[in-house]
Amino acid sequence: MPLDTESPEPAHASFTIERVYPQAPARVFNAHADIGLKRRWFAEGDGFELHHYALDFRVDGRETARFSFQGGPEIVMEMVHQVIVPDRRIVIAYRMAVGETPISASLSTIEFVPQGAGTRLIYTEQGIYFGGEGEIAGREEGSRGLLENLAEVLAEQG
Amino acid sequence: MPLDTESPEPAHASFTIERVYPQAPARVFNAHADIGLKRRWFAEGDGFELHHYALDFRVDGRETARFSFQGGPEIVMEMVHQVIVPDRRIVIAYRMAVGETPISASLSTIEFVPQGAGTRLIYTEQGIYFGGEGEIAGREEGSRGLLENLAEVLAEQG
Repeated sequence: MPLDTESPEPAHASFTIERVYPQAPARVFNAHADIGLKRRWFAEGDGFELHHYALDFRVDGRETARFSFQGGPEIVMEMVHQVIVPDRRIVIAYRMAVGETPISASLSTIEFVPQGAGTRLIYTEQGIYFGGEGEIAGREEGSRGLLENLAEVLAEQG
Repeated sequence: MPLDTESPEPAHASFTIERVYPQAPARVFNAHADIGLKRRWFAEGDGFELHHYALDFRVDGRETARFSFQGGPEIVMEMVHQVIVPDRRIVIAYRMAVGETPISASLSTIEFVPQGAGTRLIYTEQGIYFGGEGEIAGREEGSRGLLENLAEVLAEQG
């Protein structure tokens, strides 16, 4: 993964992921607002060592995660909430960095649309990726994995 | 301009504007970093009444502008710096609201590319516009106007 912010070809891109959950929008939304739940599906996982996690769920409030993966360098995620419409929509801006070197800056919209008794979650990310085109597919795959983690955490809640 | 965040059709969009300035990249970059210069081209203008302006030019530092236009409602711009590469690139996330009602959330990349003795500024905005498609053309026009204001402020500097 190229990490040089001086790369001549940072890439702007956008992608959208949809995932249907059997839980109602209020439940899926709450898993973004509650620090204990969010931490479980977003910041914990096999092979990850979490050094720091904080979530301040309000407009202009930040989320920070510092972690390493399989003994690698520290990765830092810094997010700030842009728009919150309860049970319906969250817009966030976030930056990923390896140490002090940014690898991306993104704006993501998370929409919670009722579907039967459940929720269709629509995740749209727009961003600039300093590793270039090659980094975008990995980000989409990583985002899809997080939404799978979310499904498991919601199911465990019963 | 529709202001309802509950609009069923917020629109994601992206646009790019290029503007060439006779001044070197360090000068054009500095007009984004210096509060006095930034305020002049970004926050002041005929018909605008500026109620509050603040700029903290560093990563995670904020810029706030509160103003009204021709006696209309207060418009609030809240920005946070995401990435700063001196004389070369700035990435920002910003939100516009009328009162407490958000009308957009955006991620913008400003690139400063040397062109002869001058600078090619490349402005790329990606965002979600709660007024829908109709709002995007206006945002692009407004952004283009700001880059014209910047040209005037740089020229006055001599």
